[in-house]
Amino acid sequence: MSTASRRWFVVGLACLAATAWADKDPDDKPFAEARILLQLSEAGRESTVLDVANNLIRHYGGPDMVDIEIVTIGQGIKLMSTDSPYRARVTSLSKSGVRFYVCENTLDTMERNTGIRPEVDENALLVPSGFAYIVHRIKEHDFVAVRP
Amino acid sequence: MSTASRRWFVVGLACLAATAWADKDPDDKPFAEARILLQLSEAGRESTVLDVANNLIRHYGGPDMVDIEIVTIGQGIKLMSTDSPYRARVTSLSKSGVRFYVCENTLDTMERNTGIRPEVDENALLVPSGFAYIVHRIKEHDFVAVRP
Amino acid sequence: MSTASRRWFVVGLACLAATAWADKDPDDKPFAEARILLQLSEAGRESTVLDVANNLIRHYGGPDMVDIEIVTIGQGIKLMSTDSPYRARVTSLSKSGVRFYVCENTLDTMERNTGIRPEVDENALLVPSGFAYIVHRIKEHDFVAVRP
Repeated sequence: MSTASRRWFVVGLACLAATAWADKDPDDKPFAEARILLQLSEAGRESTVLDVANNLIRHYGGPDMVDIEIVTIGQGIKLMSTDSPYRARVTSLSKSGVRFYVCENTLDTMERNTGIRPEVDENALLVPSGFAYIVHRIKEHDFVAVRP
Repeated sequence: MSTASRRWFVVGLACLAATAWADKDPDDKPFAEARILLQLSEAGRESTVLDVANNLIRHYGGPDMVDIEIVTIGQGIKLMSTDSPYRARVTSLSKSGVRFYVCENTLDTMERNTGIRPEVDENALLVPSGFAYIVHRIKEHDFVAVRP
Repeated sequence: MSTASRRWFVVGLACLAATAWADKDPDDKPFAEARILLQLSEAGRESTVLDVANNLIRHYGGPDMVDIEIVTIGQGIKLMSTDSPYRARVTSLSKSGVRFYVCENTLDTMERNTGIRPEVDENALLVPSGFAYIVHRIKEHDFVAVRP
C-alpha cells in the first residue's frame, strides 16, 4: 500500500472506531442537569470518589438529575476488582445509574507485569483507554471531568 | 404525589436552586482575560496553590486581568480554618480579588465524624458541594479548572 | 502616567504577550482527532505520564492522529532535567511529535531557593507559567487537559 492510501486506510479505521464507540455511549437521563465524570487513578481514593458520587446525586436532587461516570485507571481499577471491599457500594450506585469504567490498557499492563489479568466486577464497563475515554466524553458529550 | 408530579416538583426545586446560585455568582472583573478555578482537595498543597494564584496574577499583569477562585474540598479546607498558618496570605489574596470557597459537604462530614464543625476564616464563601460548584463554574461561567 | 492610561498600557502589553504566544503555538498535525495536554506536577509520576502518551498514540492509530503536549510544573520538571533517567523516552516521544513544556516560574523558584537554575533537556520548550499555558491551550486551541 502507498503511504497516502495507508494514511486514508488508518483514517477510515479510526472513524469506524469512533463511530462504534459513540453508538455504545449510554445516554439515558433526559432530566440530567449535568454530566460529570470522576477520574479515579490513585490507590486509597476509592472511598472519597464514591462519597463524591453520593453527594452529587443528593446535591442535584436525585439520580435522575445528574449523569455520573466513574472512570478507573491505573491503581484506581482496584475499586472494580472482584475482591474489592467496595463492591456493595459500587452495586448500589450502579442501581442509581452511575456507570463504572475500567481501562483495558491498565488490565493489559498488569497482566504483562504479573502474568495474571485482574478480574473485574460485573458492574464494570471496559474501555480500551481510560484517558482517551475521558477526552471523548468531554469533547463529544458535554461531560465535565473532575478528579476528587 | 404521583411519580410524574413529584418529578416536576423536583425539577422546579432544582431550577430554583440553580437560579439562586447564579444570582450570587460574583463577576466583577471586566478586564479579566481568563477565569481560573484552582481545586485544593489534598493536605499539604496549600502553599503550592497560593503560590500558583500569585504567579497567575503576576503572569496576567495584575489582579484586574485574571479572575481566580480557590475551591477547598476535603482535606483542602484546612487552608480556610481559623487556625490555618496561611491566614495572612489568604487575606492578602482576598484583597486582590481572589475568592475562596469551602465545601459544606466536607464541613458536614467532618462534624459527623468528630462532633465538631470546623470554624472557617471570614474570607471563606460557603458552597453546598465543592465539586458541583466546580462543574457549575466550568459549564455556566467559562472557568477553566486546574488542580495544582 | 494616569491610572486610566496605565490600565490601557497594561492591556496593550497583555495583548502583545497573547499575540506573541499564539504565534509560537505549534499546530502541525492536520489529521489529529484530538488535542490532549498531560499535566505533570508531582514527583514519581514521570513513567506513568510517558506510558499514557504512548498508549494514547497507539489508541488513536499513530502519532499523526493525536496531538499531545506534556506540561511539566513544580516537581514535575525533573522529567526534563539533563540528568533525568527518562531522556531516551522523552527524545523518542519528541520524534513522534509529542511536545514537552517546562514552567519558567518553577525554574525561577528553584533558582531562588537553591541558588542553581536547573538545566533542562534540549527537547524542553519553555513557557512563562505552566498553569497559564494549560488555561491558554484549553480556551484557545481546543485542548483537553488531563492529569494522569
